[in-house]
Formats: sequence, C-alpha cells, structure tokens
Amino acid sequence: MSVPTFNTAMLNWGRLILDGIPFVDLSEASTALEANVSWLEFWSAKADHYEELGTRALADGLELSGGYWLWLASLCCQYAQFLWFDDRREEVQQRKVDLYDRAAPHLSPPALRVELPIDDTFIAGYLRLPPGPRDGKVACVVLLGGLESTKEESYMFEQLLLERGLATFTFDGPGQGEMLAQVSLAPDFERYTSTVLDLLVTLEELDPDRIGVLGRSLGGCYALRSAATDDRFAACVSWGGFVSVEWEAEPPHDRASWQYVTKTGSEEEARVQVEANLDTRPLLPRLHCPTYVLHGALDEIPGEQVDLIRELAANAPLTVVVEPLGDHCCHNLGPAPRVAMADWLSIRLAR
Amino acid sequence: MSVPTFNTAMLNWGRLILDGIPFVDLSEASTALEANVSWLEFWSAKADHYEELGTRALADGLELSGGYWLWLASLCCQYAQFLWFDDRREEVQQRKVDLYDRAAPHLSPPALRVELPIDDTFIAGYLRLPPGPRDGKVACVVLLGGLESTKEESYMFEQLLLERGLATFTFDGPGQGEMLAQVSLAPDFERYTSTVLDLLVTLEELDPDRIGVLGRSLGGCYALRSAATDDRFAACVSWGGFVSVEWEAEPPHDRASWQYVTKTGSEEEARVQVEANLDTRPLLPRLHCPTYVLHGALDEIPGEQVDLIRELAANAPLTVVVEPLGDHCCHNLGPAPRVAMADWLSIRLAR
Repeated sequence: MSVPTFNTAMLNWGRLILDGIPFVDLSEASTALEANVSWLEFWSAKADHYEELGTRALADGLELSGGYWLWLASLCCQYAQFLWFDDRREEVQQRKVDLYDRAAPHLSPPALRVELPIDDTFIAGYLRLPPGPRDGKVACVVLLGGLESTKEESYMFEQLLLERGLATFTFDGPGQGEMLAQVSLAPDFERYTSTVLDLLVTLEELDPDRIGVLGRSLGGCYALRSAATDDRFAACVSWGGFVSVEWEAEPPHDRASWQYVTKTGSEEEARVQVEANLDTRPLLPRLHCPTYVLHGALDEIPGEQVDLIRELAANAPLTVVVEPLGDHCCHNLGPAPRVAMADWLSIRLAR
Repeated sequence: MSVPTFNTAMLNWGRLILDGIPFVDLSEASTALEANVSWLEFWSAKADHYEELGTRALADGLELSGGYWLWLASLCCQYAQFLWFDDRREEVQQRKVDLYDRAAPHLSPPALRVELPIDDTFIAGYLRLPPGPRDGKVACVVLLGGLESTKEESYMFEQLLLERGLATFTFDGPGQGEMLAQVSLAPDFERYTSTVLDLLVTLEELDPDRIGVLGRSLGGCYALRSAATDDRFAACVSWGGFVSVEWEAEPPHDRASWQYVTKTGSEEEARVQVEANLDTRPLLPRLHCPTYVLHGALDEIPGEQVDLIRELAANAPLTVVVEPLGDHCCHNLGPAPRVAMADWLSIRLAR
C-alpha cells in the first residue's frame, strides 16, 4: 500500500483533513481524479450529499448534526472552488457562503453573522462565543484567511480556541470570499481588521484588552500588518505568513490565485500589485504586542521571511517556531502545531 | 499518487482515523512498515512523543491539551498492541490504561474512574457527564468494546454522545483490556453489564429509565445479550455485531485474537469456546427495547447474521441499516454511520 503525499496543491491531505474534510472523501477524491472526474464536480457532489444529510437532520430536529453536515457541505464547496478558475467558481463560492450561513445557528457554539459597513460595502463576519457559564468577559481572537482560504474554513481552528474559553471572530477582507466581488486585494487590509476591532471592543461579552489576531498564510501577513498598525491587539500569530512576496518562489497555482484576487489581466500585472500592496516590512517596527511566528522549513515561502521578521519586528516579544519538517503552514505535521498556537493564544490572552 | 486502502487489519485507516489517530501518524506508520520498522515499536514511540507533549502541557497549566495528548498517547498504545501477540503486549496494554487514567481528569468533559466489585475482582470503567447546565437528570449510554477494542478506544464516540447531551459509561468486561488478566472471554458478559447498570440507576445525575447500551463488533453481540437479559435498558445498538460466530469466516488475525482472549492453547480450543460462549440466538426472543443494527455488506461477518437478528429478535422494534459499501463496522464510510447511531440514541433516549 502506498502513502498519500502532501505536496499536491489541491489534494493537500494534511490541510484538508485538519480543516475538517473526512479522510474517506479525500480517498474517494484521489480515485476520482485518477479516473479524470473533475475536481469541482466531485466536491460539488459531496456538498450535495452533505447538504441533503443536513437538511434532513434539521427536519428531524437533530440540530447538532444539521449544523455539522451543512458546515461540511460548505467546506466541500470551499475546496471545490479554491483553486478553480473557470466561470463556475463564483457560483460555488456563493453556495459555500449560503451553506455556512444555514449551518451557523446550529453550530456548537453557534456562529452569529455580522455585517459591518465599510466604505460603500460591508464586512461579513461571524462571532462565536465559548459555551458554558462565563466568568466575566472573555478574550477573543480575530481569524484571518489567506489567498484562497476564507472565513468558512477556520471552523476547526475556532473549535480549538472556543474549547479553551476564547471567543472567535472571522471575516472576509479584500480579495477574499464574500468581499472579492466588491473589493479585490488591497494595500489596506489592516483597515478592515481595525473596523472589526471597533465593533469587538464595544461588545459586553468581550474583554477589549484581550483581543488577539491570527492569520494563516497570506493571512499571517495581514495579521502582522493589523497588529502593527492597531495597538489594541494584545497578541498576534503569523501562521505560515510572510512580510514580502517573493514572486519567483510562488508556485503556478498561487500565481493564478494572485491574478484572480487582484482581478488583473496577466500574471505580470498581478505581480506588480501584489509586491506593492503586501510589502509589510516598513510596518514591522511598529509591532509591539507578543507575536508568534510559525514557519515550516519545507515551505515554498523562503525561511528568509522569518529572518526579516526577526530583524524588523525588534520592538515586539517574538516567539518564532520553525519546524524542520513542516510544509506550508505545517499542515503536514498533524494537530500539534495548531494546538501549540491555540495554547499560546490562551496563555497570552489569559486574564 | 495512490490511494490508501482500508482492508489491512492493523493499518485500518478508516477505523484509526475515526477513533482519533492523526492522519499524519498513519501516513508515517505506512512508510515505517515499508521500511520494516516494527508496528509495536512505531506506535510505542508515538506514545512516548504524545506522553511528553501531555506531561509538558500539564506542567504549563494547559489542562485541555494535557488531557488530549495523554489520551492520544493512550490510543497509540491501544493500537501498538491490539493485534500484537508477543510477550510485550501486556506491558503496552497496561501503559494504555495508565495513560488514559492520567488523561481522564483533564478530558472535556472529564472521565471519572469507577471500580465496581464483581466476584473476586472488579470492573474498571469510566463515567462521563455532558458539560454545561443540565436540565434535570440525563440519559446515559453504556459503551462496550469488542474483541480487541477496549474502553480507552471509545473516546471519539463518547464525544458524539456527550455533545448531544447524553452521559457515557465505558468499561472492560471479560476478555477485554484491564479485565483480561483476571477473566478471559466468558459466556456471561451480560452479567457484567447488569452490574454496571446496578450502579448507574442509583446515580442522581442519571435518569434510570433512559439508559441505553451500544457495542461495537463483538461488543455488538454483547450489547444484544445485555439488552435481551436486562429490561432496564431502554435502547440497544449493535454496531457491526453478530449473534453467532461463523468460524470459517474469521480472518487469521481474528482467530489469533480469539485464542488470546480465551487463553486457550490452540485455535481449535478457541473455536470451541467462542462458538459455545457467544451463541446469542437463544436470547434474542427476550429482546424488547428499540434496537439499531448497523452492518456493512462488505464485512467478513456474513450478512446472514442480520437475517438471524431480524428473525429471532421479533419482539423488539428493530432499525436495521445495511450499508452496501460498508466494511466491518462501516469504518470505511467516514463519520456518517457514527453520527446516525448517535442521533438514533439521542432520539430514543430523549425525555
């Protein structure tokens, strides 16, 4: 018997399983791909199946299962379209949003949809509060997606935080998920994070002095930008992030994604925008809060990015973890790196 | 890239992942086996690693992670020895017990160890109560392991029940885990279940009228015996169980396990004991409570076993689910069959 490898962009076993796709579905997907079934159609059919289970469960009064299956259907739509570039993508992206929104009130704990005005549009996000009796105000972590990861994909990490007594807030910013249609990749993602924070500090359930930010991949870059420019953040995690884009190191599917989220006509135009919009180096000296940086030494993102953070974020207490055998975001290392980040946040944001 | 198959006895991807082993460890195990690393040593080393993570987490005050890692270490020991027949097995079995007991108070919700006297020994079990504010007494499910599955292996299924508001009690009976040293496979497993029930009906947190029993594989046989002989059970689930052993259908590793748990000198002696001790057909007419039977059509246990239940358990309301593509216990079908059983129990045991 052979072992699945981790290095395909779409069939990324470590990532998809840790984010909640059942092993059996990945196994089936692998067989389907060998038989030339389309990736988008395979996962859309899975979403159909799980949506049916969820709809039936809710009709039977099985709220927990209803929420689980609808969320899983949403996640299948996320992966159906995350690296898919034909004109069916938008429809599947929207289906993901709709399915997650149907799941939201039935999740445990539930997710509350928030729409925050900004400019001439709004930020769509979800707030989740830890279950059980709460001893006063709780800490909260703002979760940022990346180049093709969106708010619906952070559910499993949210669970790690929620069971540790932390609230979570996740949203789509410029170039991501629900917001892409209105706002493409932008040089001021941190302005959106601060708008979210403007709301969070007013909520009576949350302690405004104990709000952190965590971002994954490109979200790690955004987390650093957000914490550097808004001192209200009490902790920051860059999970496989970076502070400047090294275009030459970008694999083909990421270049295609950059072009997609910048809505540019060519990879060269995308490169110019991306390099200009995401250069976070000038902001790093303004970072003051405790910051955790996770990097996999086998990531295509060069380790020099970590050196840059060490050098330029000299005013922040840094915890830098470089996993020698870790791939991008250390998805190939199982639950340990994620648990470590959740634990670090729970300690940094403790009362 | 090739797809992992489900049909090896030890490297049973579906089972081990659904019971909580991280995908990455199975992937590593697969590579290690190809390099002729011993299965027992591979998983013992994994247990070392997770035990270290757990011990460190507890020292750092990270209770949730401490419980999780120690439980995972215990689970690695379970699989290190579950189909291993040399003289190191007992030591690893005991290590599993010790690690689980260290994890128990830190699980969420915690597991409370109970030792119930029976004959000249005791039944070791764990009680877990659903978290959160409880609106009166709660229902409970007694979980039974099988031929080589023990109480420490039911954690993931317990979570499904606990999050649905049901309490759980799991224990090792004759021929299983902690009890094997004192009592080998016996014709009266149901007497042990009833002794457990004698305790449960006295607990003020539990509703004595809403206690069910679920058993997996051989435990499915025990669940049927237990519910048929003790009318206090309000619901029964046979998960991949059977009512008589068809020896010719047993694969070699199961025959070795039968010999191990009967402590007999040969497979032939084991066969005689097993066939005599486990014939549950005469008891089935006494089964009255609602009963759910799950069977996979690709199971080596013949589908005729389901026909026997249908025919002989004529006095019980039966829900029979035969999954056309399911293997033994439908481990290869992902979370859906497990969620369905948990949902069925939550409905049958609702107030």
